[in-house]
Amino acid sequence: MTSIGERLPRKEDPRLLRGLGRFCDDQDRAGQVWMRVVRSPIAHGRLVEVRKPGSAPGGSVVTARDLPPGLRIPVRLTVQGIDLTEYLQPVLAADEVRYVGEPVAVVLADDPYEAEDIAERVEVDIDELPVTVDTASGTKAAEFELGYGPVESAFAQAAHVVTVEFDVGRHSAVPLEPRALLADVDPATGALRIFGMTKVPVFNRDVLAGMLGVDENLIHVHAMDTGGGFGVRGEFYPEDFLVPWLARKLRRPVKWVEDRAEHLVAANHSRQQRHVASAAFDENGTLLGLKDDVLHDNGAYARTHGIIVPELTLAMLPGPYRVPAFHGRIQVMLTNKTPCGTYRAPGRFEGTSVREQLFDVAADRMGIDRVELRRRNLLTADELPHTRAMSTLGTDVVLDSGDYAGLLDKAMVEADRLGYRSQLESLRERGHSAGLGVAVFLEKSGLGPQETADVVVGTSGEVRVHSGGTSLGQGIETVLAQVTADALAVDPAVVTVVNGDTVLQPFGGGSWASRSTVVGGSAVHKAALAVRERAIQLASRMLEVSEDDLEVAAGTIRVKGAPGMSVSYAEVATACRPGSPHLRNDEPAGLSARRRFEVEHMTYPYGVHLALVDVDTGTGHVKVLRYLVAYDVGRAINPTLVEGQLLGGVAQGVGGALLEEFRYDDAGQPQAVTFMDYQLPTAAELPHIDILVAQDAPAPGNPLGVKGAGEGGVTAAGASIAGAIRDALGLTGPVGRLPMTAERVRGLIEEGT
Amino acid sequence: MTSIGERLPRKEDPRLLRGLGRFCDDQDRAGQVWMRVVRSPIAHGRLVEVRKPGSAPGGSVVTARDLPPGLRIPVRLTVQGIDLTEYLQPVLAADEVRYVGEPVAVVLADDPYEAEDIAERVEVDIDELPVTVDTASGTKAAEFELGYGPVESAFAQAAHVVTVEFDVGRHSAVPLEPRALLADVDPATGALRIFGMTKVPVFNRDVLAGMLGVDENLIHVHAMDTGGGFGVRGEFYPEDFLVPWLARKLRRPVKWVEDRAEHLVAANHSRQQRHVASAAFDENGTLLGLKDDVLHDNGAYARTHGIIVPELTLAMLPGPYRVPAFHGRIQVMLTNKTPCGTYRAPGRFEGTSVREQLFDVAADRMGIDRVELRRRNLLTADELPHTRAMSTLGTDVVLDSGDYAGLLDKAMVEADRLGYRSQLESLRERGHSAGLGVAVFLEKSGLGPQETADVVVGTSGEVRVHSGGTSLGQGIETVLAQVTADALAVDPAVVTVVNGDTVLQPFGGGSWASRSTVVGGSAVHKAALAVRERAIQLASRMLEVSEDDLEVAAGTIRVKGAPGMSVSYAEVATACRPGSPHLRNDEPAGLSARRRFEVEHMTYPYGVHLALVDVDTGTGHVKVLRYLVAYDVGRAINPTLVEGQLLGGVAQGVGGALLEEFRYDDAGQPQAVTFMDYQLPTAAELPHIDILVAQDAPAPGNPLGVKGAGEGGVTAAGASIAGAIRDALGLTGPVGRLPMTAERVRGLIEEGT
Repeated sequence: MTSIGERLPRKEDPRLLRGLGRFCDDQDRAGQVWMRVVRSPIAHGRLVEVRKPGSAPGGSVVTARDLPPGLRIPVRLTVQGIDLTEYLQPVLAADEVRYVGEPVAVVLADDPYEAEDIAERVEVDIDELPVTVDTASGTKAAEFELGYGPVESAFAQAAHVVTVEFDVGRHSAVPLEPRALLADVDPATGALRIFGMTKVPVFNRDVLAGMLGVDENLIHVHAMDTGGGFGVRGEFYPEDFLVPWLARKLRRPVKWVEDRAEHLVAANHSRQQRHVASAAFDENGTLLGLKDDVLHDNGAYARTHGIIVPELTLAMLPGPYRVPAFHGRIQVMLTNKTPCGTYRAPGRFEGTSVREQLFDVAADRMGIDRVELRRRNLLTADELPHTRAMSTLGTDVVLDSGDYAGLLDKAMVEADRLGYRSQLESLRERGHSAGLGVAVFLEKSGLGPQETADVVVGTSGEVRVHSGGTSLGQGIETVLAQVTADALAVDPAVVTVVNGDTVLQPFGGGSWASRSTVVGGSAVHKAALAVRERAIQLASRMLEVSEDDLEVAAGTIRVKGAPGMSVSYAEVATACRPGSPHLRNDEPAGLSARRRFEVEHMTYPYGVHLALVDVDTGTGHVKVLRYLVAYDVGRAINPTLVEGQLLGGVAQGVGGALLEEFRYDDAGQPQAVTFMDYQLPTAAELPHIDILVAQDAPAPGNPLGVKGAGEGGVTAAGASIAGAIRDALGLTGPVGRLPMTAERVRGLIEEGT
Repeated sequence: MTSIGERLPRKEDPRLLRGLGRFCDDQDRAGQVWMRVVRSPIAHGRLVEVRKPGSAPGGSVVTARDLPPGLRIPVRLTVQGIDLTEYLQPVLAADEVRYVGEPVAVVLADDPYEAEDIAERVEVDIDELPVTVDTASGTKAAEFELGYGPVESAFAQAAHVVTVEFDVGRHSAVPLEPRALLADVDPATGALRIFGMTKVPVFNRDVLAGMLGVDENLIHVHAMDTGGGFGVRGEFYPEDFLVPWLARKLRRPVKWVEDRAEHLVAANHSRQQRHVASAAFDENGTLLGLKDDVLHDNGAYARTHGIIVPELTLAMLPGPYRVPAFHGRIQVMLTNKTPCGTYRAPGRFEGTSVREQLFDVAADRMGIDRVELRRRNLLTADELPHTRAMSTLGTDVVLDSGDYAGLLDKAMVEADRLGYRSQLESLRERGHSAGLGVAVFLEKSGLGPQETADVVVGTSGEVRVHSGGTSLGQGIETVLAQVTADALAVDPAVVTVVNGDTVLQPFGGGSWASRSTVVGGSAVHKAALAVRERAIQLASRMLEVSEDDLEVAAGTIRVKGAPGMSVSYAEVATACRPGSPHLRNDEPAGLSARRRFEVEHMTYPYGVHLALVDVDTGTGHVKVLRYLVAYDVGRAINPTLVEGQLLGGVAQGVGGALLEEFRYDDAGQPQAVTFMDYQLPTAAELPHIDILVAQDAPAPGNPLGVKGAGEGGVTAAGASIAGAIRDALGLTGPVGRLPMTAERVRGLIEEGT
């Protein structure tokens, strides 16, 4: 029996459902001081002075002048040959502020209310400078091209060339729990215990060590529960330096919890791009070439992601299609808005929206069925692995395995079975402006270069896994427990997974880029197999039989054919203690193993989204009636969790497609700083979502065959909903931008495009 | 250049001298609850009822009925074939109390003052039972014999037989910091973080895990500073279960700090024994045989040490002498007094006092100079290694190396050089009752079976050592840093040692039995050499030269003859990161090593004590005028720290010889529950102490050649002071007991013995 593939209840749930989650704000340290960030109220200006209010009792104010000079937050994901040094964000603005919300000072007080009160009375004197909110007018921080093949000749030979202009709106993740950080210092050594660093704790530990000028082993980032990550949480932000630095300086614990208004201006924004994309087809609708010219609005600074979102946008734009020639150019523009980073399916949400609109417009123009046009141009299983002469995230783009058309067919059959098309017809018959959108997409996951895992068996038989992933709410503890239980042939109930503790796992890569199950899971698998092998070796000594005569089953190592002759993992662990007669002098004590799984290439899951929408042509309101996601994840460790990932992704995708947008006025003032203005989809905005988890194309590059499931729910949501709206309104041209708010839908209707 | 042997300032001092030590009572957790122990006011009785005071607001009372049934604290150091189960101490007394101070309940409250107030109002209803305070009338818990050779025929053939009766008084260690414990629980998982478990943190973790019924990996014992150990602190006491158990039950941090009055009745007592010892000599003063019959007062229960103190008493009694035949019998008696355990030099302080009195009395009786009689009977260097057909602490007694007579001569020469004998004569000329006592002794140290150490180099070049020892104030961090620096050829300043953290070092054996430098240091040495070797391997790849062409010096790995071609440890550590081109796929990441050092036998340091005393024959007051310790530790890693150990030991020895005693009245009421009654020596009672650290006989059983230095300052203090008093008073018989309080000295004078 294997526990892989089982729909096990989440190991996280008993604590989370009973309110026993260990979120950062649940942590308090005796004697802690609270930090509050004073943020710029002006989008652009010269910072003249920051004055502490005369009557601030007990509190103190720290500005850039109090910090070590020249501190800027480095890029985590660099792109070779592109230097962003001059665009990096300082920890606190020193001379110039560049967006509303930029940290200019911090206030410290004994309680959070006092800190907030003082912060409000800090006087920030700024000489205003001209403000840029329009992407095209911004400062160009970088420009680069990606592509391969003879694009110009492809377009020259084309029977049909289709061009669309498309704007993707600025929005981002809004995790349930805002950011928070607590740093507890050992006054004797300056050693730091940090709570609340998520996503890439080891990397952030190292950045912090570098900025503080201390050894990385002086910093212990602890495992935490986290109320959602989605790319924005857990990157290294100014507060990630300020809180630990202050704790060391004050020799007191320092705590900071972001409020929602702060989160909406301080955490990474994402997505904002303007595309001009063209596709060239021959007379049969065969794609000859693809090109895209992109303006990417990165906000005021280059943050930790550098220009990886622009790079991914281009590198993933050809998607699952046979694209003989491709050229993409992207200009990364800085504006006086919140800096940008990744948000779930970064670059793919944007690029898929554009590419799939191209297919829809082209199909209509060529008179080919939209699904058929796609099917005709999808790479076939025989064509894989398929290498594109591009690289992204430091890896070559090699599509590893898949049956893209097969999944498209499955999705269409499933949609028909579920009555999507019949419902569409019925709605139309009743006079509704209903539409069906279909989008096919490619995802990427399992980014290396490595993940490391420890599997440790205690003398009670409990198995502990120390993984480099982080628990962001995605259920990774459950998944890794299943992987471990499978390899050891134990009940997953005896497996406890600790993620993101930098002492327990100092070589962790973190949870991002849909890599936890693929890379982290494979490392756990390797470590667990090593433990199993070691247990067999010890059992052989204990039972005095050959290793070949032993098998592992139901938590015991037993003699084949004589299951009564067995030892338990608990007994083996006890036999591995120092001083045990079964342990040899040159062998390490303990029943445990640390293993590293290295990968050079990513793996590429793929999927199909179908959206059935009903447009109220009077109000412009778009209602998503039905939604189907088909996604091939190679192998589902826990199908329920894959479905959960996809459901959540769709919800965020609906938000990005219809509702969520960070708008700014001409003075650079953010217009969405509460949930009244930044509109998230609620349960009322979401239909029942149909999920089809496919496992037809296991990943060849990892022992579990898995592909990441974290992002495929959102990737094509903009594309499918845009397609559905276009279908509903009978547009000949593209839906030119997202989100398709009611106002914009009314605009489309009025234009009669 | 080696850092071994250097008188480096202690690495611990910067924090300790600035008041930044991390003692348990410095720790507070938000939301913590304070525990206070309610102790029996009666020495023996049936526990009828424990009643919570009616008006206790907020507090709660926990008795044995609230605990899991049948909890008793197990023996840590078992002696084969002796079962002490029925004498083990319960966590809380359930039916019967057996000594004043026995825990019968605990009170919990939000602050320590309230907890103490409530505890005082808890009504403990006890039906009194007969009380035994006299050792001979106690319950015999165990009786055993050790010995070898034809003792009876030796005595039958002897020209001279000398017998002494000798009582060693009940006293114990009184560390500057009383015991304390803080347990912080993860409410989600029940995982415990524990502060304040010292001495044997891994063992205590395992005992606690067993008693709680959880896996040991659910418990994290943290490294702490500790204000002195000396054997009593850090054993598993009732509070070591109660605090963590309550934290889990209440899902709140629980803190407990012992006050001094509690400490004096709750922590292990020690030393109390009554000896009847005889020595048989031929006409030349050659020792033919030795025997001893001992009554050992163990107080009310068998605690974690079981009967190891009695065993050590007998096994070490022959000391450094050539003893052809030996027989010892010991009866372990239970009385209604605080239970006993080890105190610095357990069994050796007692046995050495008795044996050296025998030599003094015999020398006088045979008309041989006391030093000469000893010299004549000491084992010579040629006779070593010398095996005695006994075992103790689970190891065979094999005296490994030494030149006992050589050290005695050195000590006498040094004493003459310093004017001990001339001062004695001068005092006597002036009519003083002055005396000189000389005692020779054997110590044991370096108990196995193993110690494990990790050496980890960070990417800044900082070296961290995770040792299984504990920092009890002895300077072990400095010693292990020197050992590490020596092996790596780095500056000790870049080495940080973390002791006693069960996550960082899950296989630690702890600091006791003078084993930290010997066994812990050897493990660190092995691990550091492994790191050095690995660094050379990596440097060879980085510099593209053969490993044979590399040498390690001044913190770098460099090409021999071309010191400009080098890489630093920091660079090597960076090259060991996952993803580094220098790291191979099958190699573990990180520049670190864990190594285990295993030993089967102890090593045996040895020494000489000289005490010059002046007895006020009117008051009976004994003033120690001068004191000399000569001690061969094989190799001194840091001579200043060895001297510090010896100085502290002498101070405690003077206390045990002259002042400290836990007396009881006939009802079993302790008479020494404050420092008014339990008299510790102060600076005024201590003379300048001369120290001669010898390194003539390196230990053959470990790579550093070290022998433990922790106990030799106290071992012969009772013996030398008893000898000096006897000399001062011109006694023909023995000084029959310790401590020689003024009252007892007056008694001896009045008896004119």
